[in-house]
Amino acid sequence: MALIVQKYGGTSVANTERIKSVARRVAEYHRRGDRLVVVVSAMSGVTDSLIKLAKEIAPLPSEREMDMLLATGEQQTIALTAIALHALGVPAVSLTGAQAGIVTDGVHTKAKIHNITPRAVHALLDAGSVVIVAGFQGETAEGEITTLGRGGSDLTAIALAAALKADLCQIYTDVDGVYTADPRLVPNAQKLDQIAYDEMLELASLGAKVMQSRSVEFAKKFGVVFEVRSSLNDNPGTIVKEETKSMEGIVVRGVALDKNQAKLTLVAVPDRPGVAARIFKALGGAAINVDMIVQNVSHGTDTPQTDISFTVEKADLAKARKVIDSLKAEVGFRDVIANEAVGKLSIVGVGMKSHTGVAGKMFEALARAGVNIDMISTSEIKISVVIDLARAEAAVRAVHAAFIG
Amino acid sequence: MALIVQKYGGTSVANTERIKSVARRVAEYHRRGDRLVVVVSAMSGVTDSLIKLAKEIAPLPSEREMDMLLATGEQQTIALTAIALHALGVPAVSLTGAQAGIVTDGVHTKAKIHNITPRAVHALLDAGSVVIVAGFQGETAEGEITTLGRGGSDLTAIALAAALKADLCQIYTDVDGVYTADPRLVPNAQKLDQIAYDEMLELASLGAKVMQSRSVEFAKKFGVVFEVRSSLNDNPGTIVKEETKSMEGIVVRGVALDKNQAKLTLVAVPDRPGVAARIFKALGGAAINVDMIVQNVSHGTDTPQTDISFTVEKADLAKARKVIDSLKAEVGFRDVIANEAVGKLSIVGVGMKSHTGVAGKMFEALARAGVNIDMISTSEIKISVVIDLARAEAAVRAVHAAFIG
Repeated sequence: MALIVQKYGGTSVANTERIKSVARRVAEYHRRGDRLVVVVSAMSGVTDSLIKLAKEIAPLPSEREMDMLLATGEQQTIALTAIALHALGVPAVSLTGAQAGIVTDGVHTKAKIHNITPRAVHALLDAGSVVIVAGFQGETAEGEITTLGRGGSDLTAIALAAALKADLCQIYTDVDGVYTADPRLVPNAQKLDQIAYDEMLELASLGAKVMQSRSVEFAKKFGVVFEVRSSLNDNPGTIVKEETKSMEGIVVRGVALDKNQAKLTLVAVPDRPGVAARIFKALGGAAINVDMIVQNVSHGTDTPQTDISFTVEKADLAKARKVIDSLKAEVGFRDVIANEAVGKLSIVGVGMKSHTGVAGKMFEALARAGVNIDMISTSEIKISVVIDLARAEAAVRAVHAAFIG
Repeated sequence: MALIVQKYGGTSVANTERIKSVARRVAEYHRRGDRLVVVVSAMSGVTDSLIKLAKEIAPLPSEREMDMLLATGEQQTIALTAIALHALGVPAVSLTGAQAGIVTDGVHTKAKIHNITPRAVHALLDAGSVVIVAGFQGETAEGEITTLGRGGSDLTAIALAAALKADLCQIYTDVDGVYTADPRLVPNAQKLDQIAYDEMLELASLGAKVMQSRSVEFAKKFGVVFEVRSSLNDNPGTIVKEETKSMEGIVVRGVALDKNQAKLTLVAVPDRPGVAARIFKALGGAAINVDMIVQNVSHGTDTPQTDISFTVEKADLAKARKVIDSLKAEVGFRDVIANEAVGKLSIVGVGMKSHTGVAGKMFEALARAGVNIDMISTSEIKISVVIDLARAEAAVRAVHAAFIG
C-alpha cells in the first residue's frame, strides 16, 4: 500500500479516449490498494488554442490574465479525469492547484512554488479517494491564480511527491523513458533503467527534452525519486535518483545532440582585461542566454589579440549579432563570424569523475568518423563539442558506438 | 459618475471580435467616468462542447465535477475580456466568482447564492479598474467551486448589483429589450420602455424567454432595477422595476405564447375528496411540473364524476402518462386523453388589478378569430388560455391587436 503521485502530460490526456485509458491505469493501482494523487496537464492543443484566442485580441496580453486563462486547461482535465474514474467505480475528487494547497510567488506565467499545504489532499486520501490535481498552476497567498511556466505539471507532481512524502512519483509521457541517445538517430540506443539527477540535468539542458531542468533540480533538492515512463504501455521506465556508487561503473550514460545552437566568433579581439566582461555583460543585459564560451590563447606581440567564440540559441542569433555590432567601435575586434550550421554533441555520465581518458576516446571516435571539432567545453560529468551540423548525426552514432554500443 | 453592473451573455462574447466590441462599449462608459463591474458568460458553444466531452466519458457525470469543468468557460471569457480592455488602454482585472466573493450553498449545478462579500471588487474599483467577474459561478464556504444553473450569469449580475448597491444594472443580450409579443409572430409588437417585476415574471414563466424567473425574483426581492438591452446596438432597452401607479394605466403589458405545453384530461373521475390530491401528489413525486389545472363541475348523480385537465411540459408528457396509468385502478377514472397540439396563450399586466372586462375582451378577440378555448386559468395580473396549436399564432395576433395594436 504505497502513496503514489502520477503525472500525465498533454498527449496522455489528449482526448476522452486517452483520459479513459489514464483512468483505467489509475484504477488498477487503486484496486491494488495504493493511495493515488494524479497530476494532469491540459489536453494537448487546449493551451495553444487559448493562447491563440488571447493573441487575436492583443499581441502582448497581460501575464496575470494569461494565467487566469491558461489555468482553465488543466481544470478541465482534472474534472474529466475524475468523471472517467467514477465511471470505473473509483472514488475520485478533482482539485485545482489552489485547492490542493499549492502556494506560489506572484510572478505570473513563471511562478515558483513557495510551499504546499496538502491538507485537502490528505483528507481526501484518508477518505479513500483518488485525488486529481491540476498541474502547472497554483495560487499566491493573496488568492491570485498563477501558472508555473513550461514543464510546470512535472514540477507540480514532484513538489506534491515531496510534500506528501510519497513512496513513488511516476511521470507518464509519450516515451518509454530516458535513452542513451535519441532512438531516431541511434537505432541501437538503449533505455536506461536508472540515471542520476545530475546526468538527467545535463541531458535536459542538452536537448534531450524529456523533462525541464527545473523539475529535475527540484527533485534533486528534495530527494524525490521519480520514474519517467510511457502512458501507452506497461513497460517499466527510467528511475531518476541521487547517484550511487554503482552508477559510476558506467562512464557515459547518454549522448545528446542539440541542433538549436548557433556559433558567433569575434575575430582579433584586443586581449586586455575587461573585454570579455564587456561583451558578455552586454549580451546578458539583452537577455541572451550564452551557452559555451571558448577563448583561444593570445597571438600577436605588439597589441596581443585573441579570438572569442560562443554559442547562443538560434532564435537569439540576430539579436546577439546586433549587440555585438554595437560594441565594435568600443571593443575594437576585427570581424564577427556567425555560423548557424552547427550542432552541440555531448556525452554525460557521473562515471567521468573517476575515469580518465574519456575525452580522448570521444575525440578519437569523432576523428575516425571524419568529424572536425570547432569548440570544446567540459564539466565534471559532461564533455560537449561544437561540430558541423551536416556531420552531427553521424557523429552521435560514432560516439554512441564508442561508449555504449 | 455611476456604479454600473453590466452583464454580457454568451452570444455577446461568442468570439474575439464580439469580445473586442464588448470592450469598446465598456471603455466608453469608463471614459465617461463610470465605475464598472462587468459580468460575462462563457463564449457561446463552449459550455456545450465541455458537456459533450463529459458525456463522452460518462452519461451521468458527477455534478461536483461538472461544476469544476463548466466553471472554466466563464473563467476564459473574463481573462479575454480583461485583455481586450487592456488593449484599449483601460485598466481591468478579472475575478472568478470565488474571487469576487460570491458564496453559495453546496448544491452543485444549481447552487443558490448565500451572500456576497465584494471586498476585492470594491478595492479594485477604488483603484480605478474595471472589474470583470465570471458569471454563473461561486464557491461554497469550504472552497468548492459551484455553478448557479441556467440563467446563472444574470443572477450573478443582479446579486452583485444588490451587494454593491449599484446605480444601474444592464443585462446585455441579443434582443433589444422586452416586447409586447414575440416580434416574429406579431410584426407590430412594440418594445416596452418599462415593465414591472411581476409582469416580467409572468412573461418569463410563459415562454417569453428573455430571462429566467429566478433572476427576476432575486431582483424583485432586493429591489434591483435593471435594464434588458442589446449588445449589438446603442438602443435603450426595457427597464424592469417595481410597479408604479403609472404602470397601471396600461392593462395588458404583453402577450405570450408557450408552445411547449401538453394537455392531459382524465375523463370521468369519481368526484370524492382526496382524488385530486392523490393524482397531483403522484405527479409531483415524479418531479413533473404541472402548470394549469382545471376541474369541471361534477356531473352524474349516483356516483358523481368529473373531468380533470392539466398541462405539463411536452418533455414530461410520457412520464406523466405513465404515472396516471399506474393510478387507474386506484382512482377509477374512465379514460385519459393526451393532446400535444396545444398552445398556452397569456396576457399579462398589472393594470388588470384595477380594470374590469379584460377577460371578456380577450375571449371575444379569440372568438372573432375563430379560436376555441380549451382551458382557462387566471391570476391577479394574468389570464391564460389553452388553445389549439394550429390556431395559436393567429390567436396571438388577434389578442395583441385587441389590447395593444
